[in-house]
Amino acid sequence: MSTGLSTDPIETSPDVTPNAHAVARILDSEPVLTDVVPAGEVVPGMTPNTILTSGAPLPWVAYTGGQRRAIVGAAVFEGLAADEATADALLTSGDIVLEPCHDHGAVGSLTGVTTWSMPVVVVRDETHDRQGFCRINEGPSTESLTFGVWSDAVRAQLEHVRETVAPAFGALLREVGGIGLRPLMRRALLLGDDLHSRHTASGTLLRTAVLEALVASPEPVTAARRDLVRYLREADYLFLHMAMAASKAAADAAAGVPGSGVVTAMTLSEREFAIRVSGFGSEWFRGPLPDTSTLRGRLFEPWTHADLAYVGGESLITETVGLGGMAAAAAFALQDFSAGTPEAMVELTRSMYRITVAEHSSYQIPYLRYRGVPCGIDVAAVAETGIVPAIHLGATLRDGGHAGAVLFAPPIEPFRAAAARLASAPTPVTTGGTVR
Amino acid sequence: MSTGLSTDPIETSPDVTPNAHAVARILDSEPVLTDVVPAGEVVPGMTPNTILTSGAPLPWVAYTGGQRRAIVGAAVFEGLAADEATADALLTSGDIVLEPCHDHGAVGSLTGVTTWSMPVVVVRDETHDRQGFCRINEGPSTESLTFGVWSDAVRAQLEHVRETVAPAFGALLREVGGIGLRPLMRRALLLGDDLHSRHTASGTLLRTAVLEALVASPEPVTAARRDLVRYLREADYLFLHMAMAASKAAADAAAGVPGSGVVTAMTLSEREFAIRVSGFGSEWFRGPLPDTSTLRGRLFEPWTHADLAYVGGESLITETVGLGGMAAAAAFALQDFSAGTPEAMVELTRSMYRITVAEHSSYQIPYLRYRGVPCGIDVAAVAETGIVPAIHLGATLRDGGHAGAVLFAPPIEPFRAAAARLASAPTPVTTGGTVR
Repeated sequence: MSTGLSTDPIETSPDVTPNAHAVARILDSEPVLTDVVPAGEVVPGMTPNTILTSGAPLPWVAYTGGQRRAIVGAAVFEGLAADEATADALLTSGDIVLEPCHDHGAVGSLTGVTTWSMPVVVVRDETHDRQGFCRINEGPSTESLTFGVWSDAVRAQLEHVRETVAPAFGALLREVGGIGLRPLMRRALLLGDDLHSRHTASGTLLRTAVLEALVASPEPVTAARRDLVRYLREADYLFLHMAMAASKAAADAAAGVPGSGVVTAMTLSEREFAIRVSGFGSEWFRGPLPDTSTLRGRLFEPWTHADLAYVGGESLITETVGLGGMAAAAAFALQDFSAGTPEAMVELTRSMYRITVAEHSSYQIPYLRYRGVPCGIDVAAVAETGIVPAIHLGATLRDGGHAGAVLFAPPIEPFRAAAARLASAPTPVTTGGTVR
Repeated sequence: MSTGLSTDPIETSPDVTPNAHAVARILDSEPVLTDVVPAGEVVPGMTPNTILTSGAPLPWVAYTGGQRRAIVGAAVFEGLAADEATADALLTSGDIVLEPCHDHGAVGSLTGVTTWSMPVVVVRDETHDRQGFCRINEGPSTESLTFGVWSDAVRAQLEHVRETVAPAFGALLREVGGIGLRPLMRRALLLGDDLHSRHTASGTLLRTAVLEALVASPEPVTAARRDLVRYLREADYLFLHMAMAASKAAADAAAGVPGSGVVTAMTLSEREFAIRVSGFGSEWFRGPLPDTSTLRGRLFEPWTHADLAYVGGESLITETVGLGGMAAAAAFALQDFSAGTPEAMVELTRSMYRITVAEHSSYQIPYLRYRGVPCGIDVAAVAETGIVPAIHLGATLRDGGHAGAVLFAPPIEPFRAAAARLASAPTPVTTGGTVR
């Protein structure tokens, strides 16, 4: 089984355009949730002193906010440093290695910090024999590393998930041979999830599948299994992490098609938005983050836009494959956290068909008469139309924590840069991916 | 606890109009699924030789189609007659008593046949201390009494539910103290159910609640409990019967308000559509059924409109309280089985606000910016506008069985007749309900 990006360029046919070739690999992905295990056991290139985080990589000194707090906290949690000052020194010296999730077949929610012992959900793309990874949701409290907070309570929640919930979840998944996510995600869209900011249906469907497996299991209902049940009931954004791992596996399968301008990753660090493009493998095209005052959406009381700050985030891997804000018209319940009104959400999704190259055969939007979600963002179409992908994003506080959810418009510069490079290379480039 | 319609007129206040008074009793209903037990143990007025069926009552000879087959089958199943000829004779003589579900605090899906030993779901309205009943779904096969079929396979399915599934379900519900349906139904509407033709979300939410109760239970997972789990997974229209019992309890609470033209029941027999109106208690206003060729919707292959026939039905108690076709704009996934397009479904629901007197505070429609479903059909408004309630109905075959789902427009005559009577009675009439 291959993981991460392939090291060889994908073979192409003269009968299929590069974009059609790339998007077909997203469309035919067959994600199956197979396991929950410590990152060190499964994530390629992971080492005991590596910390993964969201976004195109930055020098350690560039991290100053919530993402820095989460990285330092992760180092202490993992036992790589006794305290925050030591962690800072080891990160500065490079004795603790900081790398992008995306270089390891993984994606991270918000800060995205992932260490050796932290459990990840494993989603296998059966079509392409690949895996995608995402650290499992930390649990019911959003006082968490994910949201840029490090505290004793955060440590306790992380330990509970690592020691109790994740082993029980992984064992059960292995017992039942995994849970197919394509039919589950298909149903969830019909039930009003966008699979990024809203996962009410998908979370319930997953919970039901797990509960059925528990009832059918020959094993007794142990205390750990009851803890798993409680976790599944209480963890906010439970399914998002599975949708992210599934989307990452599909998007990576589309990477490395020579000449294709299909976007294969969109990611945020504290400082930058960045994309990868199929024809350019693992290269990042970067752009500045818009001021948080420009974000539309809804913040929880008592927060205002002045309280917001970016902490990184890779959940927009779901938009990369046509979900989230791209599929806004599937999820009218999100209206306050998206374009404001159902009508505006419909227009938003309709406009996304202008910058994508395909419609998904399984993931459909009832309001659009079961039209497939707009899939395969083409950098050339973005550059030409000036329309950027619509992204549903969790809003985070400057001091850490969950502030609400917003509609995020990424900067157009990275798309333009990639489109210009593609246009200037008449012969398809064949960089392939070279992650590791 | 009272059941069925109250025998005394509801006290009214000069500060509240009769319609506002009646609809308030629908709006503040708090349904809880409390039990599954044989009808004979709980349905008021039930006797061992009574068969309940859908619709305003007709003489036995008037039943000639699927409803007749179901009634005869129910008599044989219950052991009231050794064979169909004997059943016919006993029904003719009145030794088997045939009565409307609606006179017993109950409603029935399609043919609606219910006998002494058949299990019913019990939904208690905690606000008004009332109960509503509906025979539990027969199981995964639509070759069933519900759909007008009587056979050895139907008998086997009925026996399995009666002997195994229903006792396990009832015991579990008593163990957990019931399952609150108002929050569940509220969530289901946000997840795209209309709670009549579509119950994908509500069924999953109910299943999840039951599975959680099973996992939390100190009792072992017995074979009967595993049968219950399989039943919950496989039974089509599982939650419809709970929604019907909940709606019946709410609608009955609104009956008997002097001077109110709010509809408290809509029902079909093989031959007629009929309504009850709050100010006229248990009286039926009847009208002819539209020709089946006029039904819009979608039929399963290979059926055509020529294959259809009415077999009765009381699931439109859901429309009576603002769900189903009234809430079409909540359930775009149903478009082929409803008005044809999402836009037409929106217009359909919007038009329903013209004939209703309130909007539900809990049951909301995301596409309409969380507007509450149109609740409390006013016969005067129907008569004045010519707009009849929009009803999502299961389509049945002449020879029994499930043919699809359609949008049903009831005849306007019963609404006009009730409106005319109200208008001619300047002093509020105070008939109250007089079921038994």
